[in-house]
Amino acid sequence: MTTHLPSLSGLRIEQRLKELAAFTDVPGEMTRLTLSPAHKRAAGQVADWFGAAGMSAAIDPAGSVIGRYEGARPGGKTLIIGSHIDTVRNAGIYDGNLGVISGLAAVEALHAQKRRLPFAVEICAFGDEEGVRFPTTLTGSRQRAGRFDMGALDEMDADGVSRRSALAEFGAPTKGLGEKLADPASILAYLEVHIEQGPVLEARGLPAGIVTALNGVTRGDVMVRGMAGHAGTLPMAMRRDALATSAEMILAIEREARAAPDLVATVGTLNVPGGAVNVVPGETRFSFDIRAPADGVRRAAVEAVRARIAEIARVRNVEALFTPRYEAEATPCDGVLYAGLARAMEKSGITPFHLPSGAGHDVMSFRGLCPVAMLFVRCRGGISHNPAEYASPDDIGTGARLLYDWVMAMA
Amino acid sequence: MTTHLPSLSGLRIEQRLKELAAFTDVPGEMTRLTLSPAHKRAAGQVADWFGAAGMSAAIDPAGSVIGRYEGARPGGKTLIIGSHIDTVRNAGIYDGNLGVISGLAAVEALHAQKRRLPFAVEICAFGDEEGVRFPTTLTGSRQRAGRFDMGALDEMDADGVSRRSALAEFGAPTKGLGEKLADPASILAYLEVHIEQGPVLEARGLPAGIVTALNGVTRGDVMVRGMAGHAGTLPMAMRRDALATSAEMILAIEREARAAPDLVATVGTLNVPGGAVNVVPGETRFSFDIRAPADGVRRAAVEAVRARIAEIARVRNVEALFTPRYEAEATPCDGVLYAGLARAMEKSGITPFHLPSGAGHDVMSFRGLCPVAMLFVRCRGGISHNPAEYASPDDIGTGARLLYDWVMAMA
Repeated sequence: MTTHLPSLSGLRIEQRLKELAAFTDVPGEMTRLTLSPAHKRAAGQVADWFGAAGMSAAIDPAGSVIGRYEGARPGGKTLIIGSHIDTVRNAGIYDGNLGVISGLAAVEALHAQKRRLPFAVEICAFGDEEGVRFPTTLTGSRQRAGRFDMGALDEMDADGVSRRSALAEFGAPTKGLGEKLADPASILAYLEVHIEQGPVLEARGLPAGIVTALNGVTRGDVMVRGMAGHAGTLPMAMRRDALATSAEMILAIEREARAAPDLVATVGTLNVPGGAVNVVPGETRFSFDIRAPADGVRRAAVEAVRARIAEIARVRNVEALFTPRYEAEATPCDGVLYAGLARAMEKSGITPFHLPSGAGHDVMSFRGLCPVAMLFVRCRGGISHNPAEYASPDDIGTGARLLYDWVMAMA
Repeated sequence: MTTHLPSLSGLRIEQRLKELAAFTDVPGEMTRLTLSPAHKRAAGQVADWFGAAGMSAAIDPAGSVIGRYEGARPGGKTLIIGSHIDTVRNAGIYDGNLGVISGLAAVEALHAQKRRLPFAVEICAFGDEEGVRFPTTLTGSRQRAGRFDMGALDEMDADGVSRRSALAEFGAPTKGLGEKLADPASILAYLEVHIEQGPVLEARGLPAGIVTALNGVTRGDVMVRGMAGHAGTLPMAMRRDALATSAEMILAIEREARAAPDLVATVGTLNVPGGAVNVVPGETRFSFDIRAPADGVRRAAVEAVRARIAEIARVRNVEALFTPRYEAEATPCDGVLYAGLARAMEKSGITPFHLPSGAGHDVMSFRGLCPVAMLFVRCRGGISHNPAEYASPDDIGTGARLLYDWVMAMA
């Protein structure tokens, strides 16, 4: 592993993440919603860093900072390394930002050596990944992929500000917004470094891992309607208890997820409308969220869950309405790209370990457009979207050096 | 069965229940909270009816209407037939009121025949059974049983009105409030007729049933604390899901209740604080309500549930705090009294059927003071505390005649 390049130092990258954290909309915490004043200032700082690293830097029509480090010859392909600099409210400082600064560090290392690659390297600091402010999200990476949906301009935030006026306020140019890519084949690949936001690498004692795919997801809810009754006067045998029925369904969902590797299923909310300590519940609603790296596995699980819920409802003589409301297909990572990453890891004495990404990332915007791949960096306790989010300088440095070696191996 | 006495006609009793329903605090619905203006007017009407049936009638210090039909000789014992005329909000017209009017009908039948029994018969229209307005309840029947707790006078309703001032407003005399009974042995027995408020008699095709005991109850709640996590990034095997854990506990509680006859257990509320569709639940709270006619059975069930919950928590590596918060002992009905009722039923060609009362009733105030018994009248669909509450005139008449025959058999 490349260890002699000061640009790739974990401490240096950590220092930059801390500097970037100063750009917040809420003093005392890390809150930088998309297209906010703090986002605008952070984008300016990132553009300055990009420029200092020998890149041309500009804000694009969707508010992303695009830094471009030209290749050895004009007309070559472009390798995109991206992530995002917007955050959730009261966030950590690593989510998204780490990927941008790690990409920057890799280019700085090239620039310090005055090296040019057979392809251009573009570092993208997208600005709309968290989806906190507007109804849809990933508009930054979708613009770069030529997939920006113009309908998103009319979306409103909670204060009634449209994305259109937020982009104008941000200072994004309007020219080219929503344009399709003239030549998708010009993109060599899309790479992203991100903290894992899960506990798997930590549990395995590994500083980094190779993402096999970004999970597809099916979300929805189940409404169970039984019959309310008096907790004292309704014998057990005559009950049509919506909550006990839901309990059985929740366990069935859990069992289904446990039966397949990399499948996860969650019931995150449950309500008992009108519930009281002395009333047999007549109605419940609960959510479900089923994810898997393989769409076939996920769809089979959704159908199995649907069938189990219907069967449990039938046996207990209650109604159950199973309603999927949102579906997103998986984004498989490119086998050749992740084999390259695996080799970089092996050379560095790190066991290549593969895991799916349960969370969504900007990489999804490039699905089917070009080969994509992700590198996960270990984070403490799997904690993310929280001020306690943490990745060690050692692991950050390992991630940056693996990224650099990976890019060099592609050259 | 006595069928020739017009006082005992179900249609006539139903008519009176409808007249009583006119006394409501909320026009258009049946709402008569304890010591409210509607309660005061209803009590006046009941007192008038008592007087017309040959009884002395008076409001007692707790706001009950006490009607007394003297026995053949002074100094005999007193048979109390009671129930209540307060209601929940948006109630039915049968709950409580049926027992008072059925008792009145029995005395009317005696009065019409100018019959005196070897004991006095007292009809009590208690006025504080539903427990909607003040924190504690059953104060009417507890006063009659010499068990009124003077602390209840300082209780406040939601508008800051104390029970003391509500009683004064109601016009209840203060003399004798809270006094113990001079001679508990003077009470021969306490009988109560009430709609079942459950679906058992209807399911068995029976117009009436004999109550074996009023269930004891243990209520409380369980707090489960696992670990919140990302629904996508947290593998199933690493989860400490508070809701899935709770689901297993709810089914364990249900299984425990199903294992013993006449035991019922209910989880009526469940909350997932901070729950979201894409978050593995870190914490839940749910209630439990466990009832049985036999206190030993109930206590054993509570301990079994406690042990199962601890075991499930241990296996899933979550914390569970099982907290009983309220306990009431069962009120067993008197075997001799209910054998008398069974004979009255057999004579009428009605199969004597015994069932516990899952709900609480005024009869509980007389627990251990005198022999007590209850007659349940079938109601439609087990529905109660609801405008759809209904008992047919046929069943009401059957209940009144069984009560009359039962009282006559005691004479």
